[in-house]
Amino acid sequence: MRVVTVERTGEHEGRTVTVRGWLAARRSSGKLHFLQVRDGTGTIQCVMSKAEVAEAAFALADHLPQESSLEVTGVVRADPRAPIGYELGVTDLRVIHQSADYPITPKEHGVAFLLDHRHLWLRSSRQQAIMRVRAEVIRACREYFDGQGFLPFDAPILTPAACEGTTNLFAVPYFDETAYLTQSGQLYGEAGALAFGKVYVFGPTFRAEKSKTRRHLTEFWMIEPEMAFAGLDEDMDLAEDFLVHVVRRVREQRAAELRVLERDPAPLARVEKPFPRITYAEALDVLHGKGFALEWGADLGGDEETALSESFDRPVMVHRYPVESKAFYMKADPADPRCALCVDVLAPEGYGEVIGGGQREDDATMLEDKIRSHGLPLDAFGWYLDLRRYGSVPHAGFGMGIERCVAWLCGLHHVRETIPFARMLERLRP
Amino acid sequence: MRVVTVERTGEHEGRTVTVRGWLAARRSSGKLHFLQVRDGTGTIQCVMSKAEVAEAAFALADHLPQESSLEVTGVVRADPRAPIGYELGVTDLRVIHQSADYPITPKEHGVAFLLDHRHLWLRSSRQQAIMRVRAEVIRACREYFDGQGFLPFDAPILTPAACEGTTNLFAVPYFDETAYLTQSGQLYGEAGALAFGKVYVFGPTFRAEKSKTRRHLTEFWMIEPEMAFAGLDEDMDLAEDFLVHVVRRVREQRAAELRVLERDPAPLARVEKPFPRITYAEALDVLHGKGFALEWGADLGGDEETALSESFDRPVMVHRYPVESKAFYMKADPADPRCALCVDVLAPEGYGEVIGGGQREDDATMLEDKIRSHGLPLDAFGWYLDLRRYGSVPHAGFGMGIERCVAWLCGLHHVRETIPFARMLERLRP
Repeated sequence: MRVVTVERTGEHEGRTVTVRGWLAARRSSGKLHFLQVRDGTGTIQCVMSKAEVAEAAFALADHLPQESSLEVTGVVRADPRAPIGYELGVTDLRVIHQSADYPITPKEHGVAFLLDHRHLWLRSSRQQAIMRVRAEVIRACREYFDGQGFLPFDAPILTPAACEGTTNLFAVPYFDETAYLTQSGQLYGEAGALAFGKVYVFGPTFRAEKSKTRRHLTEFWMIEPEMAFAGLDEDMDLAEDFLVHVVRRVREQRAAELRVLERDPAPLARVEKPFPRITYAEALDVLHGKGFALEWGADLGGDEETALSESFDRPVMVHRYPVESKAFYMKADPADPRCALCVDVLAPEGYGEVIGGGQREDDATMLEDKIRSHGLPLDAFGWYLDLRRYGSVPHAGFGMGIERCVAWLCGLHHVRETIPFARMLERLRP
Repeated sequence: MRVVTVERTGEHEGRTVTVRGWLAARRSSGKLHFLQVRDGTGTIQCVMSKAEVAEAAFALADHLPQESSLEVTGVVRADPRAPIGYELGVTDLRVIHQSADYPITPKEHGVAFLLDHRHLWLRSSRQQAIMRVRAEVIRACREYFDGQGFLPFDAPILTPAACEGTTNLFAVPYFDETAYLTQSGQLYGEAGALAFGKVYVFGPTFRAEKSKTRRHLTEFWMIEPEMAFAGLDEDMDLAEDFLVHVVRRVREQRAAELRVLERDPAPLARVEKPFPRITYAEALDVLHGKGFALEWGADLGGDEETALSESFDRPVMVHRYPVESKAFYMKADPADPRCALCVDVLAPEGYGEVIGGGQREDDATMLEDKIRSHGLPLDAFGWYLDLRRYGSVPHAGFGMGIERCVAWLCGLHHVRETIPFARMLERLRP
């Protein structure tokens, strides 16, 4: 008995193989059962003819409930109509476990119901496609940075202090102290870059935001490269090259999944170098031309980002935002100290910021002033200041949220479907 | 100016290149400075001759403090005495930032001091070697499971309930509820396996243990594969094949680092298939022969594990422990229901358990009884029971703690050096 996965059945055309999986759907027409069997790598149609199997096996399939687990043996046949190009001519069927009434039916369910049943919803073809795109994004990220000589470097999740104040942090009683769940591994990544030259932090990050928006989760994954001996220009070069790599990999490796998701492939095909690079001031000009009344210094919100991205056919890099709107560790532009040496990469089609980063303040005195003026506790940042006391170098990096990237690539309205078990304001289960 | 990394200087023999890094050490002899320059990929000796550089450049190096950041230009020369086989004949030196008095000196420091200065300690050659071995372990893990068709599948960090009671969990106020930091992604991994066939969870896990031992961190990383249509035997096959792959990769790719760590390579070279597989009962016999007085049912502690591993030249798999000593989700052996279908893989040389896993209970009724008899809240496990209601299949998996594996491969006594920023009972900083 040769057990094969659905995605590899095509390699065995004309031979008898066994597929193990779950019954995704079934229809019958007297002497034929058509079983759609899903094994996580794909779905294959298994055609069971009354004339060709034992009577008991045929009867078994008669009332088999959806999501029963099965072992189907049969001959692989080419079928140009099948999405995977093959079907199975069944010779034997074994039922491993007969499912009960499966709660997710072809009828429309509300999102709350589906999220309550996330452990089962993950079996649907759309969710399978999304999770496989997510896996490809994660692989492509690591592959890119590994290939460029970046060392994977795990930042701690339990941290003693907050990058940007404690307002949006989850506090955790930690024995006799309080820890906070990290909202970014960047500060630790900087220590890594100054020890190893180039590193990337990749792990979960947390924001205790009470807002319910389609772009926010309380728990999400970030990839954060950081490199020594680099400024804003090198940072933008890296972000651009990286994003092109990730999008290309997903297009190449997950084309079938993007089709399941009915994702328009054209906008993704245009994600090639060079990305336009405009300053915040230039972005304001573009927005003024579109009727937005914004003063210099104003934040760019979701509407502004969408309007901006509509002016370009690929991701756009907006750099040199006002220092006031950015975190304390951003380096000011020597040519115009009102501006930070930072960049946001805005995805096309209104998907908003997917990457944010910039050059870090590398002067100990300037950084100390910044920490004070932001009202942050200086003693908590002693180690961070040390990085500027012992062989400081210009350094830069960025962060990309995996879920926003997946939402964009899959063409999803909400990030909640881009992670196996989403955590949101009112969602901690299952 | 061709900027190269230290590890790639050998590709440019006879040519002029520029290396950017930090001054790890310096000695001088009148007309010569010997600068040890570290860039995170390696350390290269840069020889500066008074006759061959500008006077100002030579004077600059005269009193240059350790850990100053530099840009050194020079000609790559083969040098068989050098650890990397090459040195640089300096033609120019640029100091980027002159370091202050570096707190970590060649004199002996206590571990508490070094951990307080972890952001700097990471620059030492031993710590660099450990972090590079860690990176290789992580890459090898992902490479292995990606190659075997396992889908990366992120389990949530914030969870509503505990696998094995809440005693050792960190509780997190989560808006109006309490969440717990995950101590294992396994239960979610099972949902993944029943949707995708084969998945692996890889992320940080947490245990609020008050004990101070050399094998425990409060925050550590685990890789947890889970596969449908598999029992204990397939699980042991997978664990064995996986571990051989990881050890081989590290030996091949990180030989230089293992030499820096003075790791005896012989025991690692013996990590080849097949690993001995003995039952818990057989393990007791071995221990009785060594003078241990243990009754059936007793736990195997660190001393017992060390004594056991000394009887074998490679990792040993101990399977079928008493059900009482194991978690509620373990499946009992149908041939002897006192035993669980579980396995621990014990590393050689007294490094103890590196892998723990087994086959999961796949019968809804049996599992429900187990949850009750363990005094766990049934309603919290409704979704987990669903996995046995809708197309249950035999499934199995295991978990490997990254830090214990790295400690073993590097030959370290304590796990605290195997992660960039260790978190322990009295250690939350930096």
